[in-house]
Amino acid sequence: MPVVAVDIGGTQYRLAVVSREGEILLHQRARTNREAGAKWLLPRLRAELRELLAKGEHSPQAIGIGFGGPVDFASQTILASLHAPGWEEVDLCGELEREFALPCVIDNDANMGGLGEYTYGAGRGFGSILYYTVSTGVGGGVIIGGELFRGSHSQAGELGHIPISLDGPACTCGFRGCVEALCSGLAIARQAREAVEKGKTSSSLRTILEEKGGLTAKDVFDCAASGDALAQGILAKVKNAFARGLIGAINCFDPQAVVVGGGVGLAPGFLDGLEEQVNGSLVIPGRRKIPILRGSLGDNSVLLGAAALAFRTIDTY
Amino acid sequence: MPVVAVDIGGTQYRLAVVSREGEILLHQRARTNREAGAKWLLPRLRAELRELLAKGEHSPQAIGIGFGGPVDFASQTILASLHAPGWEEVDLCGELEREFALPCVIDNDANMGGLGEYTYGAGRGFGSILYYTVSTGVGGGVIIGGELFRGSHSQAGELGHIPISLDGPACTCGFRGCVEALCSGLAIARQAREAVEKGKTSSSLRTILEEKGGLTAKDVFDCAASGDALAQGILAKVKNAFARGLIGAINCFDPQAVVVGGGVGLAPGFLDGLEEQVNGSLVIPGRRKIPILRGSLGDNSVLLGAAALAFRTIDTY
Repeated sequence: MPVVAVDIGGTQYRLAVVSREGEILLHQRARTNREAGAKWLLPRLRAELRELLAKGEHSPQAIGIGFGGPVDFASQTILASLHAPGWEEVDLCGELEREFALPCVIDNDANMGGLGEYTYGAGRGFGSILYYTVSTGVGGGVIIGGELFRGSHSQAGELGHIPISLDGPACTCGFRGCVEALCSGLAIARQAREAVEKGKTSSSLRTILEEKGGLTAKDVFDCAASGDALAQGILAKVKNAFARGLIGAINCFDPQAVVVGGGVGLAPGFLDGLEEQVNGSLVIPGRRKIPILRGSLGDNSVLLGAAALAFRTIDTY
Repeated sequence: MPVVAVDIGGTQYRLAVVSREGEILLHQRARTNREAGAKWLLPRLRAELRELLAKGEHSPQAIGIGFGGPVDFASQTILASLHAPGWEEVDLCGELEREFALPCVIDNDANMGGLGEYTYGAGRGFGSILYYTVSTGVGGGVIIGGELFRGSHSQAGELGHIPISLDGPACTCGFRGCVEALCSGLAIARQAREAVEKGKTSSSLRTILEEKGGLTAKDVFDCAASGDALAQGILAKVKNAFARGLIGAINCFDPQAVVVGGGVGLAPGFLDGLEEQVNGSLVIPGRRKIPILRGSLGDNSVLLGAAALAFRTIDTY
């Protein structure tokens, strides 16, 4: 029997019916209205769920939700949304359980991405993994002994918030110099803009900035791939910073493998050389070789992780 | 029934008979010959154990060893000694088990310090703690759900080897910019010497360096306590670096408490202000308050942790 998986992100939300084998049997996707927040999304989500369940050809046994913001797993409460207002007041799982008479479970999207890759993706076959999603921000999910490691207050595994630079830039978390502040998509775009504005080198990044009025991480990857030295230099610094965060995390967790996903993490070249560099810089280098793998689920990691969590919920019911 | 606890460090080794309540019933201490390594120490250790056991008033049930270097816990093998040669070839536990017909268990000293504080010291009553020993180096021990967390290759919890500075000084681990490279006793002494040699400010550190030909971390703490501005500035930088490492580790592990021991960690003023600074800089600050506690076992943390591990070994036999 399948489950329903929901992925609520900053720009879109997605619903799917997923089999135990991780096959997506049905899939719907819609853009969110970020400003309108929970009040806008919740009735739409319920209507779409109603529609999905009314199709009737599958009989989902549970609902799993990956949410784009911190979730207190013990109380199944949304703590805050990084994207949209109003979620703090919403008992999302409780509402869906009451309406659809199905067990519902929620966790943050980085944990779900990690569980997805662990269960159905590049992390399969390992007992413990560190999962990074390097995207607009940098999220982390830690699996130890086959279980998501959530810590004492559901706030473990924040791998994007290991400070790696003593005087680094401000981070979205309120601190500064974190992995996210140096390696996220937003951080890459910011560093590119700053480098162009310093104006020391000619670069195709300057042309793009002048034409479009802005720069994205994708612009930096594209320019680097075309041989632009400034873009290549920025990415080299970003990759070096990411390697340092990874070294710290591995020295903490000593996992069997690392899986990296997200738009930036999966961008061409981002992982090149990383496995060698990181393994050569661990405590007692040479004793272990920890593979650093590209996530294999792409955009579906959160959805499939939410499905995996829903199956786990049924199994322990 | 008590156990025998052994603490093999860089400058001394200690043996004790310890009760289940953590009371040290008998205690012996001797200096090691660092250069002579395992060949020198092993026969002496065996002779002292023989003598200790011959006293006969207690009947120890097991031997627990805290070793000053990395240990592969699964195979109970010493991987390397950071202090002395020859240990890699020695099956220390096997030899002691054969001679004394007692179960023997070994782990690295930072793990043992953490288990000691968790079982008998400042960490009592918490389910999960991060333990730091800030001393000549910086070691870490992580307790999750009442168990030492060793990771996939016995190399988890290396909290001293989280890189926190992009261009920091070389670290004993072979990398650079780690917590240990900035916050250890050796690092503090090095920073003091460098500051004096830069010679910008007058300082009592200069007088000590000229008189003694060297500086120790203790000199820096003493001078800072006497109001020396240069020493105070060095310690402020060290404490700030330590706070950053701690923020990263807490964002990874989300523990219930942090316990800090070791000569530097327990030095006057080292922990002042740290709890407030760190808790104000975590992801979603204000949601949790993680106490940062002084270790309460002092020099006995490793010995008592080794005893606790020996008791755990008996209990699972």
